[in-house]
Amino acid sequence: MERITSTTNPRVKHLVRLRDRRHRDDDGVFVVEGYRAVRRMLDAGVHPQELYIAPEWFQGSNEGALIDEARTHGAEIVEMAREPFAKCAYRDRPDGLLAVVPQWHTRLQDLQLPAVPFLLVVEAIEKPGNLGTILRSADAAGIHAVLVCDQVTDMFNPNVVRSSTGVLFSMPVVVTSSDEVQHFLRAQKIRTVATTPDATLLHTDADLTGPVAVLMGSESFGLSQRWLADADERVRIPMAGQADSLNVAMATIVTLFEAVRQRSRSSSGGQ
Amino acid sequence: MERITSTTNPRVKHLVRLRDRRHRDDDGVFVVEGYRAVRRMLDAGVHPQELYIAPEWFQGSNEGALIDEARTHGAEIVEMAREPFAKCAYRDRPDGLLAVVPQWHTRLQDLQLPAVPFLLVVEAIEKPGNLGTILRSADAAGIHAVLVCDQVTDMFNPNVVRSSTGVLFSMPVVVTSSDEVQHFLRAQKIRTVATTPDATLLHTDADLTGPVAVLMGSESFGLSQRWLADADERVRIPMAGQADSLNVAMATIVTLFEAVRQRSRSSSGGQ
Repeated sequence: MERITSTTNPRVKHLVRLRDRRHRDDDGVFVVEGYRAVRRMLDAGVHPQELYIAPEWFQGSNEGALIDEARTHGAEIVEMAREPFAKCAYRDRPDGLLAVVPQWHTRLQDLQLPAVPFLLVVEAIEKPGNLGTILRSADAAGIHAVLVCDQVTDMFNPNVVRSSTGVLFSMPVVVTSSDEVQHFLRAQKIRTVATTPDATLLHTDADLTGPVAVLMGSESFGLSQRWLADADERVRIPMAGQADSLNVAMATIVTLFEAVRQRSRSSSGGQ
Repeated sequence: MERITSTTNPRVKHLVRLRDRRHRDDDGVFVVEGYRAVRRMLDAGVHPQELYIAPEWFQGSNEGALIDEARTHGAEIVEMAREPFAKCAYRDRPDGLLAVVPQWHTRLQDLQLPAVPFLLVVEAIEKPGNLGTILRSADAAGIHAVLVCDQVTDMFNPNVVRSSTGVLFSMPVVVTSSDEVQHFLRAQKIRTVATTPDATLLHTDADLTGPVAVLMGSESFGLSQRWLADADERVRIPMAGQADSLNVAMATIVTLFEAVRQRSRSSSGGQ
């Protein structure tokens, strides 16, 4: 097993460069850091091509089993000394595990949706932390797939990986154009419900049962006109406080769980 | 006006020390940083005792009006050079404004509640970012007061201030013991609804109308037995995905907006 002791080792430079989206996309890989995230990744059946380990940073006692499992699935294991690992790590307090993982790209035609799909469409979300939190909310609400339109933040940004707490590894996510998604939703006869502060209908008064896609816009601009005009329904969340108390991640979870409420009633009612 | 040019100035040291809760509490002050937060604070009628300004860091053109307003309300204005300000600032990209503000402490008997109170009780929340986000959610949902029991994270932590996006300045927040809050809620005949993954009743099937307090527990432990046993109702949020997809801030907003839905129906129905 290779052991890296210098902070100027080419592999260290390479790992540092992977913070940059361009380099991630050129290489078709991304970085997953920390025991918990790597554990979830392996549990979800996603396998790294390289696993960098720095035993001097280890915090627990289960690292051995995790390393063995990664190796069994074909990962190259590379050991690092304390300093070079700290240079590669994204976290302030690294725990000695950092995986380089091949990117994947799910297409609309790859989705295997149930008879009554429950989808989330997000347009041009800007902050990686919001995108990760939105993935968690989608997971908690039982969303079947997340369609990311006109991507601004890439799915493999380290903060998306971190804030999704592993949901990135299990949730089907399709990144594509608004055009493609609109065409797909129409072809699949999936109703679209756009959230916008300008709607008159409350989200709780709209029908969120049946085949439905909830549409959420970007932090700065909300949904674009093309989505607002195209949607079957436009809804708003009632706001009691200051105008910006609900950010896009909070608005998403509120809307999705109202849909969960309606959908559980609808199915238990035998419809 | 005093102008600070050295990073070893005693005022710089003092400001740095205010990152530490003990020093904040000893001095009875806290720090509000950045144009937006200071603007919201002044708008909410909260006035700083000192306003540190570093024109070399200014990003906009409205700082002058804000400084004048703070001065009019009694703030001492202290100018700083680029380097000492960067040392005091909490943010990576400071914008040249940092206020030192007296802490305030609202007591249960100070609360002015409407006839049908809608309260949020949080127990021992650990992460400042969660506490701030919970305050935002409470504001958006029209909560009348937030009761923080057995405080772990103090309300004046810089990350609470930041993540509450100004709600800290407008929302009545009482920090006290669980004992006191339980006694208060009983005396006021306010029903308590505890959220816990172990409940059988869904939050959407519980009655969240009338005088009600929603109870949320800590990140690590949930609600303590004393709150679970004492509550009038125990409810859970249905979870489709991995067990930890809903954190406490997300569970709070989901529960509060279900209450908003029920309460708007209840009032429009003439009850």
